[in-house]
Amino acid sequence: MSATENTRPAGTDSGLLSPVWAGTPVEAVTSDEAWLAAMVEFEAALATAQARLGAVPDGTAAAIRAAGESGRLDLVELARLGREAANPVVGFVKHLTGLVASTAPEAAGHVHAGSTSQDVLDSAAMLVATRALCLVRDDLARIRTALTELARDHRGTAAVARTLTQHAVPTTFGTKAATWLTLICDAHERVDALLRQGLPVSMGGAAGTLAAYHDHLTAAGVADDHPELRLATLVADELGLARPTLPWHAARTPIADLAAVLNFVGGALGKFAADVLVLSRTEIAEVAEPAAVGRGQSSAMPQKRNPVLSVLVATAARQIPVYALVLGQSMVAEDERSSGAWHAEWQPLRECLRLAAGASHTAAELAQGVVVATERIRVNLSLTGSSLVAERLSVALGQELGRQRAKEAVTRAVRDTELGMPAADALRHALNEAGLVDGRSACLDSLAELLDPEGYLGAAAPLVDRAVHRAHTAATPLTPSQEPEAKQ
Amino acid sequence: MSATENTRPAGTDSGLLSPVWAGTPVEAVTSDEAWLAAMVEFEAALATAQARLGAVPDGTAAAIRAAGESGRLDLVELARLGREAANPVVGFVKHLTGLVASTAPEAAGHVHAGSTSQDVLDSAAMLVATRALCLVRDDLARIRTALTELARDHRGTAAVARTLTQHAVPTTFGTKAATWLTLICDAHERVDALLRQGLPVSMGGAAGTLAAYHDHLTAAGVADDHPELRLATLVADELGLARPTLPWHAARTPIADLAAVLNFVGGALGKFAADVLVLSRTEIAEVAEPAAVGRGQSSAMPQKRNPVLSVLVATAARQIPVYALVLGQSMVAEDERSSGAWHAEWQPLRECLRLAAGASHTAAELAQGVVVATERIRVNLSLTGSSLVAERLSVALGQELGRQRAKEAVTRAVRDTELGMPAADALRHALNEAGLVDGRSACLDSLAELLDPEGYLGAAAPLVDRAVHRAHTAATPLTPSQEPEAKQ
Amino acid sequence: MSATENTRPAGTDSGLLSPVWAGTPVEAVTSDEAWLAAMVEFEAALATAQARLGAVPDGTAAAIRAAGESGRLDLVELARLGREAANPVVGFVKHLTGLVASTAPEAAGHVHAGSTSQDVLDSAAMLVATRALCLVRDDLARIRTALTELARDHRGTAAVARTLTQHAVPTTFGTKAATWLTLICDAHERVDALLRQGLPVSMGGAAGTLAAYHDHLTAAGVADDHPELRLATLVADELGLARPTLPWHAARTPIADLAAVLNFVGGALGKFAADVLVLSRTEIAEVAEPAAVGRGQSSAMPQKRNPVLSVLVATAARQIPVYALVLGQSMVAEDERSSGAWHAEWQPLRECLRLAAGASHTAAELAQGVVVATERIRVNLSLTGSSLVAERLSVALGQELGRQRAKEAVTRAVRDTELGMPAADALRHALNEAGLVDGRSACLDSLAELLDPEGYLGAAAPLVDRAVHRAHTAATPLTPSQEPEAKQ
Amino acid sequence: MSATENTRPAGTDSGLLSPVWAGTPVEAVTSDEAWLAAMVEFEAALATAQARLGAVPDGTAAAIRAAGESGRLDLVELARLGREAANPVVGFVKHLTGLVASTAPEAAGHVHAGSTSQDVLDSAAMLVATRALCLVRDDLARIRTALTELARDHRGTAAVARTLTQHAVPTTFGTKAATWLTLICDAHERVDALLRQGLPVSMGGAAGTLAAYHDHLTAAGVADDHPELRLATLVADELGLARPTLPWHAARTPIADLAAVLNFVGGALGKFAADVLVLSRTEIAEVAEPAAVGRGQSSAMPQKRNPVLSVLVATAARQIPVYALVLGQSMVAEDERSSGAWHAEWQPLRECLRLAAGASHTAAELAQGVVVATERIRVNLSLTGSSLVAERLSVALGQELGRQRAKEAVTRAVRDTELGMPAADALRHALNEAGLVDGRSACLDSLAELLDPEGYLGAAAPLVDRAVHRAHTAATPLTPSQEPEAKQ
Repeated sequence: MSATENTRPAGTDSGLLSPVWAGTPVEAVTSDEAWLAAMVEFEAALATAQARLGAVPDGTAAAIRAAGESGRLDLVELARLGREAANPVVGFVKHLTGLVASTAPEAAGHVHAGSTSQDVLDSAAMLVATRALCLVRDDLARIRTALTELARDHRGTAAVARTLTQHAVPTTFGTKAATWLTLICDAHERVDALLRQGLPVSMGGAAGTLAAYHDHLTAAGVADDHPELRLATLVADELGLARPTLPWHAARTPIADLAAVLNFVGGALGKFAADVLVLSRTEIAEVAEPAAVGRGQSSAMPQKRNPVLSVLVATAARQIPVYALVLGQSMVAEDERSSGAWHAEWQPLRECLRLAAGASHTAAELAQGVVVATERIRVNLSLTGSSLVAERLSVALGQELGRQRAKEAVTRAVRDTELGMPAADALRHALNEAGLVDGRSACLDSLAELLDPEGYLGAAAPLVDRAVHRAHTAATPLTPSQEPEAKQ
Repeated sequence: MSATENTRPAGTDSGLLSPVWAGTPVEAVTSDEAWLAAMVEFEAALATAQARLGAVPDGTAAAIRAAGESGRLDLVELARLGREAANPVVGFVKHLTGLVASTAPEAAGHVHAGSTSQDVLDSAAMLVATRALCLVRDDLARIRTALTELARDHRGTAAVARTLTQHAVPTTFGTKAATWLTLICDAHERVDALLRQGLPVSMGGAAGTLAAYHDHLTAAGVADDHPELRLATLVADELGLARPTLPWHAARTPIADLAAVLNFVGGALGKFAADVLVLSRTEIAEVAEPAAVGRGQSSAMPQKRNPVLSVLVATAARQIPVYALVLGQSMVAEDERSSGAWHAEWQPLRECLRLAAGASHTAAELAQGVVVATERIRVNLSLTGSSLVAERLSVALGQELGRQRAKEAVTRAVRDTELGMPAADALRHALNEAGLVDGRSACLDSLAELLDPEGYLGAAAPLVDRAVHRAHTAATPLTPSQEPEAKQ
Repeated sequence: MSATENTRPAGTDSGLLSPVWAGTPVEAVTSDEAWLAAMVEFEAALATAQARLGAVPDGTAAAIRAAGESGRLDLVELARLGREAANPVVGFVKHLTGLVASTAPEAAGHVHAGSTSQDVLDSAAMLVATRALCLVRDDLARIRTALTELARDHRGTAAVARTLTQHAVPTTFGTKAATWLTLICDAHERVDALLRQGLPVSMGGAAGTLAAYHDHLTAAGVADDHPELRLATLVADELGLARPTLPWHAARTPIADLAAVLNFVGGALGKFAADVLVLSRTEIAEVAEPAAVGRGQSSAMPQKRNPVLSVLVATAARQIPVYALVLGQSMVAEDERSSGAWHAEWQPLRECLRLAAGASHTAAELAQGVVVATERIRVNLSLTGSSLVAERLSVALGQELGRQRAKEAVTRAVRDTELGMPAADALRHALNEAGLVDGRSACLDSLAELLDPEGYLGAAAPLVDRAVHRAHTAATPLTPSQEPEAKQ
Repeated sequence: MSATENTRPAGTDSGLLSPVWAGTPVEAVTSDEAWLAAMVEFEAALATAQARLGAVPDGTAAAIRAAGESGRLDLVELARLGREAANPVVGFVKHLTGLVASTAPEAAGHVHAGSTSQDVLDSAAMLVATRALCLVRDDLARIRTALTELARDHRGTAAVARTLTQHAVPTTFGTKAATWLTLICDAHERVDALLRQGLPVSMGGAAGTLAAYHDHLTAAGVADDHPELRLATLVADELGLARPTLPWHAARTPIADLAAVLNFVGGALGKFAADVLVLSRTEIAEVAEPAAVGRGQSSAMPQKRNPVLSVLVATAARQIPVYALVLGQSMVAEDERSSGAWHAEWQPLRECLRLAAGASHTAAELAQGVVVATERIRVNLSLTGSSLVAERLSVALGQELGRQRAKEAVTRAVRDTELGMPAADALRHALNEAGLVDGRSACLDSLAELLDPEGYLGAAAPLVDRAVHRAHTAATPLTPSQEPEAKQ
């Protein structure tokens, strides 16, 4: 039963197909080993709590922890035994109990007392999710800081705003950064709120009544009215997990909340990456990814510097919402415990956690190192000449011509400038056609000023200030003792 | 241009393929006409706010409202014009302006001043969503009340708990209802929180800087530093919408939040419906849907009484998460305004609103009328005899035999009872095999008591109390003046 | 019961939120009215087939058709009655029978004889789907023709190939078009194959045994052994639908096949649109959408010419796969007829049909009119100078230096050229560093030739020829008599 | 660089969270190691083909194979290097070349000659997919055989048909099996067709023109006009993969086809599992899963025999369509190679393959061992008494009463029998009420016959025959030489 005896090759996933998280910190906290360790933690916490109530001997939890130490349980064997029960817990309990029996026989009878597979696996999932979510939160905080600086630095950097792929009107690069920042703050606060509220322990027993927990405690002489409820509280506290109102075997609010938050993280990071991908196109080149040795190489083309950080983030943004969908659909779980909906959650949940944390980690490097090419931004700003402020001209002329005629006149002038006519001539000609005597208009007098894109920035600067201000008023950091992972 | 002139047939959707919402209140608040009316509201609110700042004549908003009255704009024509701009707003503004011009020529030049398509459509979407969401909230409140009563009424009704489709251990029908209730409370509170926080107005101008709003106000002599920001606030207040930190043309937090909340509603209702569908199976028959004339008929089979309310809710629960996926994926929107992600939101957003509200309306009827067949529940409880408390026997014997041997003995006894042996004999025989002298055990003395399913309910009753207590501590209702729809 | 009596407002969907299909031909063939008409067609075909077997009077089908004429059935009323049965057929049959009774009382007793809701609605869905699919097929054929021409015209137009957003190596514009063409051919052939195979009639009776059809025919004196199977064949033929092996109430192959094919169509069109969106970016401008009066305007910016056709297609490509997902998931339908999976298909199926056909219609206009800016393509080709052929230099130098050193040398040279050094100097310098005496290399002698992007096109031309050749060897068109819609 | 040096813990996925495939044959063919081995195969096949054209020395392929032998490449290191390039190939090529250099220095310069990351990874993916798909095909064939037998064995076993969860009319158990069988045949034939057509090699070079392949061959003196096209053919043949018309870096038909087929497999298996889950419910118990030691145990409840095979299959059916969605959406891939769409395919593709093959393997065991409880089927058939043939009575009485009145009379009679009245009395009473003198009807004379469910089976038997016949006319098996995996 030991790991060394098993010589059959296992399926593996070292991240070869998922570079967005391979080797990042989330890898270790979401591996099969990490899930298994969390399952051991649950069994140990249960024994600890039961001991505190006087229902099991004091050494039980220690014996469980010792048996569950890394390498003693055969992961591959347990994975395959999972097929017998449609979940890996039945085999896990059997093997764990066997290992406990071999060193602490008196403790073996108290392993998993009153418990059920779903309590073990759901609690373990919440431990794993909490740890991965903490990584996400911390990386979002780093991105928040970096983008705040970026927005502030470029508060006054006039740049092209693009809509439906076309140059639209002037904006500032600071506004672009402020938009990313706002989404990251939204994501950060959602993650933080979920961590503060806490993910719940699962303590329902076979079908949500905690009856076997009750009978175990009562048989051991615990005299309370409903000691199983006290037990559930103690286990939650021991694990640093939250105490739910009701067992949630078939009421999957925690999973749905996780899915929603991770989905949001993916979307917020994905928007950032999507913009970097556009802005780093060869023809646009307003930003570049941070340079690093070996980064962004092609296997074929020596000149390539691919925006790989953004691509990695984009791959996560494409996958997370879809895996999250499985989690959302699993809310429709029939009976006291469902026949498939629950079991289909595990892998998509892990993938969501890995992808969100891997993408956060990657985006933090991107945000901290993104290079802004201000000269190129300036060049692009002038690429379409006076057309970029056509809206402004239209508004200005609207005072004299009425809106519809003004828009028509400007449309005509734009067409002429595109054919090479100087802006002033084109406008005079269009105004003439529009019936203004001699094409006279107050606008022509201030034409140079009107055509200056830097003069048509509306509220860009105060909006950046708002975003920066909001980013500074972050949620108060958790104190160490509140840290959900403090227990581990 | 009037509706009557248009004789071309339009695509229609009267709900023939969506009975879950056909004819329910959400139908009227989400129809194409309702969206169009909300677009008119935005233009009127914009003019009102601009008038308040002294930038447009006072009668402009009234003229816009008059022009936008039901039937004056040709919906089908506008829908088709949408193809020219990839959105329906450009044609809408043109036609609306034309109608204003015909009755209030002086106002026509002030329609849509400084605005852009996305401000109109996003603000209209938030108005429509707020109204639909209020319907959802109110129906969830009704379900909350009904399920609270159901849980309380059946606090002590012992029933079978089923896991992985099989009879597992006893529970109470009250616990089943309490599980549904908890999910509904979770859903209700999420909807309520989103409504309290408020969905935001969209006021970004062409590309998020509000520059044309600025120039319009300044040209009209408004002297503030950034009057466009005051304008945005006034428009938000006028429409009863929230004031966002930043324009959100390409930062889709409000859409993502709506998607997450509606997704949750679908899941919570779907769980309730899934259980009713199982429990009303002919062979189980523990609940029946409320009877109503004509309800649940088959076109072929006279005896059928189909659980149609649950089926309707189930159809929504199957569709909402998937449409919500489109909304989540739309967060990844490149540039200042995206080339497709935004446009792909409209229809899925409407469908989510319709389905969530239709399902809430339907589930309210179900919750208020569901018939519980207590006699049948009792019969089902005894269907597997002593097997249903096999876990309990196993715990009890564990004291004498150790857990593993106890479980084996009970497994053997269960098999014998399934072959027809009386429970006491089977147990004695199994204990004998397990090595207890003469099959003696304290358990045998209290066997009748141990086999009584009503004695193995764990914390079922206090858990019901918890759920009921939580349902009673509802969020304080909004006062009328806070009602988001108060303005309309 | 007539339409005029119903004054309650209905939910509508005139396409205001779906400009990709609003007003296109698919609108009329997929409206609620069209579904209702197809339901009438089924009932008429059933009566015709039963009459042919001598089981109902000859005039029955005509009476049904007359009763079902446009406007006589109240669509809104039927939609709402759908809530009573969780489908619109029960109410439909009742109202249709009533209308028949009012003019042909003797026929009323024969309406819907032996049938069931799902036979009516599934058969109607297949009629609607066939018609929409024919529109898709014909528009894909038009796109195929247009892109064939485009690929041929630009067989020799050297252009930049972009990978991971960056300039990579030279290719031809013809190769870009050939890639689009290949996907369109793949899509076209999948649609065509599904239409040739035919979508099946649904004739299962109450639960897939056709028992009531059997009893009806037998009671009417039809003497065959299993006349219900002959009946099913006659109905299929009458409607121009295919004859399935087995009733498919709960074996949803036809729906899954439709979903897969429409999904593919959306992806193929989406790739085309995605490339046009990139290539028409202001900074790239290698293609422009066909100009048309009013097309591509912004409500704010006079200079804008938005790529609206591509945007419309992109919106469909974003939605179709997700709606198709609902259809795929509906395969998991429990029992002889499912409690929700079937009912959740209708609306997503219609949306997929509308979106795929609307997008095909839109993309046909795009393909036929797309403007290629050859001069700009030439300019972009030279934008990165010699870097674009860095791979080529690397290969060439590999003969002398070995691959790794060659790649390093070229990487160094690229960096120097980016800093402004002429290509020949940079290369000589790099070769020197790499240890070639005096930086001598055969490559330097033919450097001008090596740097010419037109000389580094590999198999671009023959690949275009292949794609064009394949596009010409289209599936033979269906003859009129095979046309699935011939009957209507 | 060797595996043993790497002591950092890797993320693993041994299937602990995916029992549906853990330890089944697909595990080994889809592991990270298997992907890596397939990448080596591609590089070796490329060298073999180039050697055949005389462009590289003969021993190159052998040197590559030796270097790529299991364990020499450090999987974890390569996975992490993937972050540098957003794909694992760049690092792979570098390390592989290094290993070749250490033993066959002269070969090192010829590794990966002219190639690009996507050619390697896409070709490897097609090899992996082909192997997994062969496992799926073979297991579907086993299921086909088992269900054919099941359908034939129960051709005459009358059983209840259930619609919308309620008893509807009689059918046969054979018809249930025939429905499953038909879906499995559909799935089997789709998989088989895809394997016969073959998944394509990827040979596009840096951006789809094969230019570097061309230059390499030409530089080595190969004199053909376009030797790169011959090379592509040779590589395809060497790997046993199909030859595509065009490079498919950004034309993802093969991925879309795989997604569609695997999606279908998931749906077909999911329907089978869904029915087994319903039919094995404690209250229904018409089927049981095959018994096996340890199978279906609960960690808590000794009496439980959970339908774990069906649950496992159901988990796959829930996940496959959603992962397949990512694959379908990846068709919308901009440029010559996309910035994220491609990269997001790898993991979902592997999951789809694993889940489909794991589910097929599991369902084969289920189909071969499913136990049919004919006695219980008989009991359930009589559960609702005469109500089950209410449709039949309605048809029979329709001759005398007209359809509407007949249906009303039967509805009334059903209600009375549910209240305890004998069927004959209830019917006579209802007929009396309906106005038949003395409740006389020919139906009453043959009532016993009419009420016999075995007499109301319609075409159940010939439909089973059809399904069985179709299952026998399977696609001719591939001969060994056609086997796509023959080369490996």
